[in-house]
Formats: sequence, structure tokens, C-alpha cells
Amino acid sequence: MKLSVIYDSKTGNTRQAGEWIAEGMNRVEGVEAKAFPVEAVDDDFVRQSNGVVIGCPSYAALMTADMRSWLLNCGGKLGMAGKLGGAFSTEQYTHGGAELVIQSILTNEMVWGMLCYSGGGSKGKPVIHLGPVGVNSNAEAHNGMEKYKDNFTVYGERFASKAAELFK
Amino acid sequence: MKLSVIYDSKTGNTRQAGEWIAEGMNRVEGVEAKAFPVEAVDDDFVRQSNGVVIGCPSYAALMTADMRSWLLNCGGKLGMAGKLGGAFSTEQYTHGGAELVIQSILTNEMVWGMLCYSGGGSKGKPVIHLGPVGVNSNAEAHNGMEKYKDNFTVYGERFASKAAELFK
Amino acid sequence: MKLSVIYDSKTGNTRQAGEWIAEGMNRVEGVEAKAFPVEAVDDDFVRQSNGVVIGCPSYAALMTADMRSWLLNCGGKLGMAGKLGGAFSTEQYTHGGAELVIQSILTNEMVWGMLCYSGGGSKGKPVIHLGPVGVNSNAEAHNGMEKYKDNFTVYGERFASKAAELFK
Amino acid sequence: MKLSVIYDSKTGNTRQAGEWIAEGMNRVEGVEAKAFPVEAVDDDFVRQSNGVVIGCPSYAALMTADMRSWLLNCGGKLGMAGKLGGAFSTEQYTHGGAELVIQSILTNEMVWGMLCYSGGGSKGKPVIHLGPVGVNSNAEAHNGMEKYKDNFTVYGERFASKAAELFK
Repeated sequence: MKLSVIYDSKTGNTRQAGEWIAEGMNRVEGVEAKAFPVEAVDDDFVRQSNGVVIGCPSYAALMTADMRSWLLNCGGKLGMAGKLGGAFSTEQYTHGGAELVIQSILTNEMVWGMLCYSGGGSKGKPVIHLGPVGVNSNAEAHNGMEKYKDNFTVYGERFASKAAELFK
Repeated sequence: MKLSVIYDSKTGNTRQAGEWIAEGMNRVEGVEAKAFPVEAVDDDFVRQSNGVVIGCPSYAALMTADMRSWLLNCGGKLGMAGKLGGAFSTEQYTHGGAELVIQSILTNEMVWGMLCYSGGGSKGKPVIHLGPVGVNSNAEAHNGMEKYKDNFTVYGERFASKAAELFK
Repeated sequence: MKLSVIYDSKTGNTRQAGEWIAEGMNRVEGVEAKAFPVEAVDDDFVRQSNGVVIGCPSYAALMTADMRSWLLNCGGKLGMAGKLGGAFSTEQYTHGGAELVIQSILTNEMVWGMLCYSGGGSKGKPVIHLGPVGVNSNAEAHNGMEKYKDNFTVYGERFASKAAELFK
Repeated sequence: MKLSVIYDSKTGNTRQAGEWIAEGMNRVEGVEAKAFPVEAVDDDFVRQSNGVVIGCPSYAALMTADMRSWLLNCGGKLGMAGKLGGAFSTEQYTHGGAELVIQSILTNEMVWGMLCYSGGGSKGKPVIHLGPVGVNSNAEAHNGMEKYKDNFTVYGERFASKAAELFK
């Protein structure tokens, strides 16, 4: 079963997060997960995927313009309806709006007819509310994507397990 | 297969909307759908349900306090993880915040580990973005829940079809 | 006192809505309001304005890509901090996500340091929650922007009155 | 000039955050700021206040039921229209939905007719997007409200400066 992660990354943080999600997905037997930057998506791989997780950094508490364009002009043509959908984000401050970005990506996924899923609190700790978030900025003392790595890999693994259960 | 609709209704509009959704669900073969007011939910029926749709009116562009309490104190105990989740709302003005209410209900459902689904634009017209909305108020000329009936029944039918496909 | 309305419009509905808001603003003594399409904004006029209202249609329950790009690449350079901020939207269905679009525009405005204001329920009926919305589509029986005209002009007038009170 | 902070706190984190905001407000000359728990609000003090900042923790990525009830049943009676409005939140995980809680509080404030303001990025670092957030949980390595103290005090000071400028 194929799973895709699609991200817009400007500095590398969101790419790192997306790759960790794919790493977590690939821990599930029978899953082949790949992560793609939004400017180089393998459309065929996405079409064949049973689940797609999309992420981008928070810019002014909203998604990036490149992600907004991709969602409107490209993503909707990839047969998204019925696939499992997820989302993630990164931000420079804990209050930087990453959850708003995740919520807006999930909104677009639902309009495509996807099944949106995060696992939430049903799998124990860490509770992943709508999707995982990483903070990376010199502006905060607890700087560093590494501190959030487990949230991304665990999220990916849970997402893949649910996809395997639904679409086996 | 059982499906539940749970609503908070103060004047009857949201109850009407919830009953229409259940009516649409019951059009799908093998489905037994029931609608419950938030103050008289049949917990066992909900636990046995494969999908749950939750709705309430927009009060100041947010969900009602009774629905917020029920979600926190009751809903989370009903084994929601893994079920199909949906949401709907009613409002007094077209700009009254119903989509914000729907989005907040879906957010809570995802934190429970549900699979959120509306069908979106994948089933043709009417496109149902996050969930159906009814407007009823003397404040607007196009007053009248009846005008929105088809959106609620069609949404219920699509939701039930997806549940039947996933959990047959 | 100058006030600006900035809109992205693909079919003319949102342009119409924006012009109605400017019309309502111009009812207030001492106000000079102008409405600009996002591709032809008079930057100097906006810089000199004490308030800016921004609107665009709902596309998949989110703002358009052109508006997202303008907000990120252009709007933030126009000295928005401290100005009064507002938002509006149009949609093809009552449940089409217009309030989500308004909320996301207001979010960006707050990140710019604007003072966001709608009047809400404080001015009697019509209550304008976060901003006015128009529905125009053959998909709904109560089709027609004209039915929403008063909401846009009243909103513009209230917004301008508040701006005049704050920045006289 | 009076300013109020109103919070719902279950474990003390949000109370701490609210008190830090009031501390920052009181740095501004001529300002008398007080912080109240939602169950013991000094209604007269709030009525006389030119600005009100409201906060509560994220519960399942939404506001608490007690805050929802207070907003609907109490807050709206305190003459909120025209006052400066702000919001803050706390959460157990960086991805815990605090910004969603802040956005929903601001939404209610706008429906009351308040002027919503955070300062955003207009005052340099720290950028405060919609409002400040604290994370406190053994679930995260960078646990500790103290790490977020400056964001709360700086936010309070900026909010009070804007109120003093508008309502002097």
C-alpha cells in the first residue's frame, strides 16, 4: 500500500518533518511511503496512494501561497476522494498558528472528499490533536526540530496503521 | 449498521436538520439511523454505531454551551475512535458562523480519533464542503429550513454510503 | 479620512460586494472610500487609509491563491499596523465556507497589527458576526447577490463610523 | 484607565499566564489592570475597562465548557462593544490547539463588537500572532510556563499601550 507526504518547505524544517512522517509510515508492514516537495510531486504515486498527508509552515498564521496554489490547481486532480487525509505544520513560535494551518489543510481535504484522521487521543501519549507541529526558531529557547521528531514519526505510524486497517 | 445523529436544538431548526440527516441515512440499505437530542442520547446505540454526525446552532459564531459540555463530559466516553464523523449547523444569517461551528465539531471529533468525512465535491452537486447548513430567521428574506432540506438528506445519504463501504 | 476595500473577484460577485461596502462607507461624513481589485491596488491610497476591508470568494472553503499571494507579498508592505481591519466573502452555497475565509483574512490582519472590527451584534439587526457574506449560484434557490446588498452597505457604514470615531 | 484579564484555569497555568498579562499591562503609565478567574469576575471593573483580554486552556483543541458558558451567559452583558479585545491560551502540547482556542475567543469578541488586537508582528520580536500561548506538560521536554513568561508580559504591555493610545 502506497502513502504520500506532500510538503512546502522554505528552510528545510517542514521537509524534515515530512520525511519523519514518511519514516514512521514505513514502519508499518506492507506500506511504501514517500515524501515529495510540493514543486516535485510524483502525481502517479499520489494517485495510487491510499492516504495523503500534507504540510506546510505557518506564514502569518496561514498556509503558504505556494501550498494554496498547489491545493487549488494540482492536488484536486489527483483523485483524492476517499483517501485517508492528514496534515502537519511548522512554526517559529509556539503561538505561531501551526494548528490553524493544519485545520485549513484538513478543510481543503474534506472538500475533496477525503477521510481526515489524526488518531487524536485514542492511541495514548502523545495525544496528536489535529496533526503534529514542530517549532524551530532562534526566537524560542526550546528551539530545535529534533525535540519534535517523535511526534512526527509516531503520527506517521498511526496514520499508516489506520490506512492499512481501512484499505487492506 | 447503526448510525447516530446527535444535536443540540433550542427552537427546533437544528432538530429538524438532524432528523433530515437521519432520514437520508436510512435510504441506504442495511442502515438503521437514529437522531438524538443532546440531553437524551441513547449511549448504547451510539457506542454500537459506525458513524456519528453531530450538530448545533451557531451562537455568536460558536457552538452552544450545552454542546460544548456534552462533547467534553459525555461524548468522549462513547468509544468514538475509528467511527466515521460528521457535523452540521444552523444559523440565523448566512454570515452567522455555521461553518465555524461545523469546523469546531469536526476538530473535537478528530481529537477523539474519528474519521471525518463530508463527501465534499466528490459526489457532484450539491457540493457539501464541511457539512450542511440551514438558515432560519426573519432577518433574511430567504428564510426557511425547507429550502435546505435536500442538502441535509443528501448529506446523510452520502455519509451512510461511505460508512457502509468502510465498515460493511 | 480615507478607507480602502480590496477584493479578489473572479466572476464579479465579490467585486459587487466590495463596491457596496465602499458605497456604505461613503455615507459617513468626511469619508472617502475606494474599492480596488487585488491586481490593481492603489498602494498610496491604502497607505493613507485609516481602515482596510479585504474580501475574496470561498474556493474549497479557503481564500483564493491570488488573495493569499497578495496578503503575503504586497499587503504587508502597506503600513497596515494600527489601521481598522475588516473582511467579507462570497460563496456558491450557504455552507460554502465564507465565514472560514473571513476568519482567515482577519487572522492575517491581526498578524499585521490591525484592529479588527465588524460591529457584531452591537448595532442591532442585521447582526454582522465577523463580516458580511453573499451567496450567488444557480445551485441555491435563493440565488442572487442583490438579496445581500443591505448587509454589505450597512457593514461598510458601521465600519466607517467606527473608523471616524477612532481616528478623527 | 482600567484593563481586565479574564481566565478559566483548572491547574493554575492559565491563571499564571493571565497574571503575567496583567503585570505587563501595569507597566504602562496610567493603567490599572486586574486579572479575574471566570468564576469571580468583578463585573463593574470590567464594565469600566477600556480593554479586556480573555483566556482559557485548550481542551480537545477547543475552549473549556466553563468559558463557553461565561461568554454566552455573562460576558455579553458587560458592555463589551467598542472595547479593545485580546485572547490567550495554554496547552499541554505545542500542537494542542491553543491558537484555535484564541481564534474562537476573538471570534466571540468580534460578535460583541470589540476591536480585536494582538500587535502581531508590528512591534518586532517576539511576533505575537493572535495572542500568546504557554505549554506546560510533562509530555514535552521543554515543559514549563516560565519559558513563556516574557511573551505574556510583552503582550500585556503592547495591548495596554494600544488601549492608552486609542482611549486616552
